[in-house]
Amino acid sequence: MTLLAALDFASVAVFALTGALVASRSQLDIVGFIFVACLTAVGGGTIRDVLLNRDAVFWVADPTILLAAVAAAVVVFFGAHRLESRYRAIVWLDAFALAIAVPAGVGVAMGMGQHWAIMMVMGVATGCFGGLLRDVVCNEVPLVLKQGEVYATAAFAGAGAAVAVVWFGYPADAALLACAGVTFVLRAGSIAFGWVLPVYKTRPPRPQSPKQS
Amino acid sequence: MTLLAALDFASVAVFALTGALVASRSQLDIVGFIFVACLTAVGGGTIRDVLLNRDAVFWVADPTILLAAVAAAVVVFFGAHRLESRYRAIVWLDAFALAIAVPAGVGVAMGMGQHWAIMMVMGVATGCFGGLLRDVVCNEVPLVLKQGEVYATAAFAGAGAAVAVVWFGYPADAALLACAGVTFVLRAGSIAFGWVLPVYKTRPPRPQSPKQS
Amino acid sequence: MTLLAALDFASVAVFALTGALVASRSQLDIVGFIFVACLTAVGGGTIRDVLLNRDAVFWVADPTILLAAVAAAVVVFFGAHRLESRYRAIVWLDAFALAIAVPAGVGVAMGMGQHWAIMMVMGVATGCFGGLLRDVVCNEVPLVLKQGEVYATAAFAGAGAAVAVVWFGYPADAALLACAGVTFVLRAGSIAFGWVLPVYKTRPPRPQSPKQS
Repeated sequence: MTLLAALDFASVAVFALTGALVASRSQLDIVGFIFVACLTAVGGGTIRDVLLNRDAVFWVADPTILLAAVAAAVVVFFGAHRLESRYRAIVWLDAFALAIAVPAGVGVAMGMGQHWAIMMVMGVATGCFGGLLRDVVCNEVPLVLKQGEVYATAAFAGAGAAVAVVWFGYPADAALLACAGVTFVLRAGSIAFGWVLPVYKTRPPRPQSPKQS
Repeated sequence: MTLLAALDFASVAVFALTGALVASRSQLDIVGFIFVACLTAVGGGTIRDVLLNRDAVFWVADPTILLAAVAAAVVVFFGAHRLESRYRAIVWLDAFALAIAVPAGVGVAMGMGQHWAIMMVMGVATGCFGGLLRDVVCNEVPLVLKQGEVYATAAFAGAGAAVAVVWFGYPADAALLACAGVTFVLRAGSIAFGWVLPVYKTRPPRPQSPKQS
Repeated sequence: MTLLAALDFASVAVFALTGALVASRSQLDIVGFIFVACLTAVGGGTIRDVLLNRDAVFWVADPTILLAAVAAAVVVFFGAHRLESRYRAIVWLDAFALAIAVPAGVGVAMGMGQHWAIMMVMGVATGCFGGLLRDVVCNEVPLVLKQGEVYATAAFAGAGAAVAVVWFGYPADAALLACAGVTFVLRAGSIAFGWVLPVYKTRPPRPQSPKQS
């Protein structure tokens, strides 16, 4: 199993856990858990493969990868009661999955000899779209667009780190490790310590009259 | 016309009716009806064809299929006033369309010699994604994720039935018929008699004090 | 640069502005602006290219096009404070982008020798899906489905104009110009003068008794 295949497999398993946990907030049945888990697990990588027009989407080429998503859904369906805080579990598992999926996206584009900008887009897309699909379908506010979260930014920085490492002549595996590390540190720092980038602020309304100001 | 092409055609027509009926709840104009009808009608099959990397999406290969969706939108625009209950019409037509689209998805994957797990995924995806797109775009709660509905489960069971029938050596057409039958019976039983699978229940909050318990 | 490449480039830049402006309503950081801007900018053309199974999605073939989207996001992040009315800016820029993207979609299908119905679908899809993705992801009511807006209708009429012009034997560039003109005039008329098509009206509830009527 290559490093890239291992990354795809691991991100599928961890994203599937987050999908099933979000499904548990909607009180679905076991098949609903499997549906949301699979959508979350393979969503980002599928969009990457379709955009890059690969010969086959990764889980069509190797369907056993879907078993990991199904297993994750079953584990959550019978085991999530034991969790003290489901929301905390979702956010942290999602951070791990992001840090695995971004290098999986960068690595596939790198292996195809794509432009560095495409490497970055594929990293961000593979990392962000699984969770985005999960949240849009389950009608939650997408984590990627929540205020005060470093999310797309972490993916972006991680993908940029990979491009930089390759630029300086280091091997691809080093680039993918750097990518995972930068992504995870920034995302975890945002969750644990509230790290943020400055956000766009709307102009305060001009005072209309002395009384109203 | 092969059985598979007939299934695609029929699911397009019936899903288009449901799309136009949902559009009528949003009071759109005739082009809005056509837009939502087409999205619902071809959404599932399009995702199937893109995921399987077929040479051409089914309605690009045969554009006359789109006329069925346009006709359905026009019929609903001028005729839906006569319906006693629009919601009931949407739910039942959607059940018919599901029972046609799942075998259409399974059959295409089967014809390409795909793994049985891919046959099941394509059945569920072809059946569920048209309605899912319709509901996400029109901001309704997706039927596939509604509590107390057997929906993805019916598609899953139908696709499983097809795989089992082929496994026992029966011909493909028998598998597709079994698939349609199982899907429809389970979905209709859910609508008519309230059949459900047990859903995930959150742990009841621990009693805080004897008085509150 | 061909006319078609220029249309893709221009629609990317203008749609990116609308995406970044919608992002500013959600108070995202700079990377969130870039994310929503890119999604809006390339969404429609990407769906077109995937549906038509082109060898490469247009921005994967020419990644420099993404710089236009990034630049638009940066301009809005630092400059949107100066706008008197953000909503008005979004609606008018979106109208320009629509009038550029519809001929971009029609033109690509025309260049591949597709059926006229496919030319129309690709025009409408390229025009409408970028804004639809933007609005679904940012949880706004999609412009394309808002009551009292001529939107899909403008795209539909513009694409129809292109098909008609080609039918009468005029060259492709004339068809694309007609397409842009018709789309923009109808959309602008809807914004400025409130032009609408008649919408579907639900039947008024029957009077239950003389007193309640």
